[in-house]
Amino acid sequence: MENVKYPTRDQWSQLVKRPVIEASNLNALVEEIFEDIRSLGDQAVIKYNLKFDGCRVADIRVSTSDIAAAGRLVSEELKRAIQVAKLNIEKFHQQQREPVAKIETMRGVTCWRESRPIERVGIYIPGGSAPLFSTVLMLGVPAVLAGCKEIILCTPPNADGEIPPVILYTADLLGIDTVFRVGGIQAIGAMALGTESVSKADKIFGPGNQFVTAAKTVAQQYGVSIDMPAGPSEVLVIADSTARPDFVAADLLAQAEHGPDSQVMLVTESEDLADLVITEIQEQLKNLPRAEVIRQSLNHSKVIILEDLKSCVDFSNSYAPEHLILAVDRPSELLPSISNAGSVFVGHYSCESAGDYASGTNHSLPTNGFAKSYSGVSLDSFLKKITFQEVNEDGIRLLGPVVELMAQAENLYAHKNSVTIRIKSLQNEY
Amino acid sequence: MENVKYPTRDQWSQLVKRPVIEASNLNALVEEIFEDIRSLGDQAVIKYNLKFDGCRVADIRVSTSDIAAAGRLVSEELKRAIQVAKLNIEKFHQQQREPVAKIETMRGVTCWRESRPIERVGIYIPGGSAPLFSTVLMLGVPAVLAGCKEIILCTPPNADGEIPPVILYTADLLGIDTVFRVGGIQAIGAMALGTESVSKADKIFGPGNQFVTAAKTVAQQYGVSIDMPAGPSEVLVIADSTARPDFVAADLLAQAEHGPDSQVMLVTESEDLADLVITEIQEQLKNLPRAEVIRQSLNHSKVIILEDLKSCVDFSNSYAPEHLILAVDRPSELLPSISNAGSVFVGHYSCESAGDYASGTNHSLPTNGFAKSYSGVSLDSFLKKITFQEVNEDGIRLLGPVVELMAQAENLYAHKNSVTIRIKSLQNEY
Repeated sequence: MENVKYPTRDQWSQLVKRPVIEASNLNALVEEIFEDIRSLGDQAVIKYNLKFDGCRVADIRVSTSDIAAAGRLVSEELKRAIQVAKLNIEKFHQQQREPVAKIETMRGVTCWRESRPIERVGIYIPGGSAPLFSTVLMLGVPAVLAGCKEIILCTPPNADGEIPPVILYTADLLGIDTVFRVGGIQAIGAMALGTESVSKADKIFGPGNQFVTAAKTVAQQYGVSIDMPAGPSEVLVIADSTARPDFVAADLLAQAEHGPDSQVMLVTESEDLADLVITEIQEQLKNLPRAEVIRQSLNHSKVIILEDLKSCVDFSNSYAPEHLILAVDRPSELLPSISNAGSVFVGHYSCESAGDYASGTNHSLPTNGFAKSYSGVSLDSFLKKITFQEVNEDGIRLLGPVVELMAQAENLYAHKNSVTIRIKSLQNEY
Repeated sequence: MENVKYPTRDQWSQLVKRPVIEASNLNALVEEIFEDIRSLGDQAVIKYNLKFDGCRVADIRVSTSDIAAAGRLVSEELKRAIQVAKLNIEKFHQQQREPVAKIETMRGVTCWRESRPIERVGIYIPGGSAPLFSTVLMLGVPAVLAGCKEIILCTPPNADGEIPPVILYTADLLGIDTVFRVGGIQAIGAMALGTESVSKADKIFGPGNQFVTAAKTVAQQYGVSIDMPAGPSEVLVIADSTARPDFVAADLLAQAEHGPDSQVMLVTESEDLADLVITEIQEQLKNLPRAEVIRQSLNHSKVIILEDLKSCVDFSNSYAPEHLILAVDRPSELLPSISNAGSVFVGHYSCESAGDYASGTNHSLPTNGFAKSYSGVSLDSFLKKITFQEVNEDGIRLLGPVVELMAQAENLYAHKNSVTIRIKSLQNEY
């Protein structure tokens, strides 16, 4: 980790820059696969399943009996853990419902908004070294709570067409029974365009590698929306001298473990703590299986020493971390001044892993500085809020002249006329 | 207008398609201008102001004295109208604030979310045939309510560098004093990249022509987010036999007036009404100044007759209109079944113009079918919602084992360890 002591504020803009990601242009490949899916549907998907994942299975949909059977392959204690996490995530997301509040902005003019589920959502769960059933919870729970009519889950199969049982178990627990053994570009293409088996989604969610990311970007051109821009995972820890070096080191290592492109930042007012954390990282690293990934990630990570906690918070706001851990004595004093972050972990016992899995908050969060303008996934991500207005006779009499004046000043005379004709009709009644 | 009687549901998917828009590829031009702005800053912006808008003024920022003076050039009655609209928009958007609700998902595990303003927002107001001061209200009011630190407004100047006084008056009324006489690609580039005068924005809002749209799309690659995908404006009117043909015709014409690419749809169960509306449109069209624009727009617009109101609502949901007018006898009965729309106008006196200007709802709405997955602009559009969690010693004891099991099942041992190390530290205390 690079160790930077007391940088000036001018230097911050360099320090908050993320490692540059090799932006390979995959658009041509994506367009080719999408075109194939558009003309051949499921057959194209099956072809790419074979080509990219070596999977020969002819039926891309996982049968309901396979889903039901998966539960027998998951240990009871893991099932109980998943159920606890599900309950907590439900509790937290359930309370994000917005009550309908009608407001009479003027006499006879009533405005309100109501939430409606996005009807068809697609959830992508990456494959790879581990079955990411936690992401099934994080995207599936709010989708179910929102009342989405169709929830489609795509995840890559192995060569035998199998999906990890714990992913199927988790989907089943949420009542999601539309699961496809399809990964990568072909999964996003199927959900963006629709095939005989896969419904066209209105919005696609979920993490993924560069192929999935490129496909999600292209999907937007087909009228599909996506959850948020992609980027490597990251954490920033603000620590004071009361922080435990072993806790902080463990948190940094947990984030670094995600992938070689993850970034971890320690920002502290205590040089002593920084030194202790660096030592502790080396110590803990010895016992971790993904040490090689972690080393690569630490190579472009930083320890930054600043004058005081206020500067640490300012720096963090400038970085806008996906995850922010406040390993300080009185964290609540810092909260009002935190302006940019995806999710904040308050105090020494609030480790990021808690939120990654089971505390209730969502782990799908904006990275790469997008926490400046994006929120993480929430119940809202699966809803639209439609505005309504009811203007009655009194309302058009009162508000109408205002609208007429404004429309005329914008040279929109047909707009004006739609009001005038209504006001006149009321005058004629007398 | 094309008249389609009793199409089968199979035919709907063709009928709900929007007119195809000539998607000219402007990316190369946008990249060139962005590159220039990156290296030359204000000088590049001034150069393009001259090139595209014929404006020779050297100072791109509108002086505060010019802003203050603009009020004298606006009629008192228009000012009063704008003030009424501002109050209504404030009332409606103010109530969209989310109260902070802390929830203990398990003993010792407290989760909540808090809203924070997006710090720097850019608002683009197009030039052209009319000064769109209503859009200043629609974007400026929620930006100010949200508490955005910097609100930048860009709008194209005339050859003398002037901005319509009513735009400056409206900005001033909202307390927005950072106004730039810059339009088109160079305006979006300045806000996306930042120059000596223009702060880099975190999010850019506002409508625009194909150049602005292309520039907003490219801006996203520079870490800037945007309000929503662009598309021509549209309305769908659902009418029954109680609808007044003159009202419905006026509403369709108001929408058609926006531009030759606007689309208007009348969906009704009454053939008689459809005929009367078509006649009435021809009648009213005679007295409208923008008749040529309206004719072009009506060329790709449709009247659709369906069996009953339920089918009309189903069709509308399939179309997902930006604006939906319910010109029916008992509109409230239809509301629960409306699933896709930007903003809904309920009943015979609720004309779209009311919401376009002054009733309180926002007029920045999703078009082109994006109402299936996007909400219109609201207070939320200017906020991020940050999640927080505080896990105390009790919490980590209770939740920790759940997290350990799940992290292990995902092969993320450093994640597991960040919990284990905390639980062990507590055991050691005894």
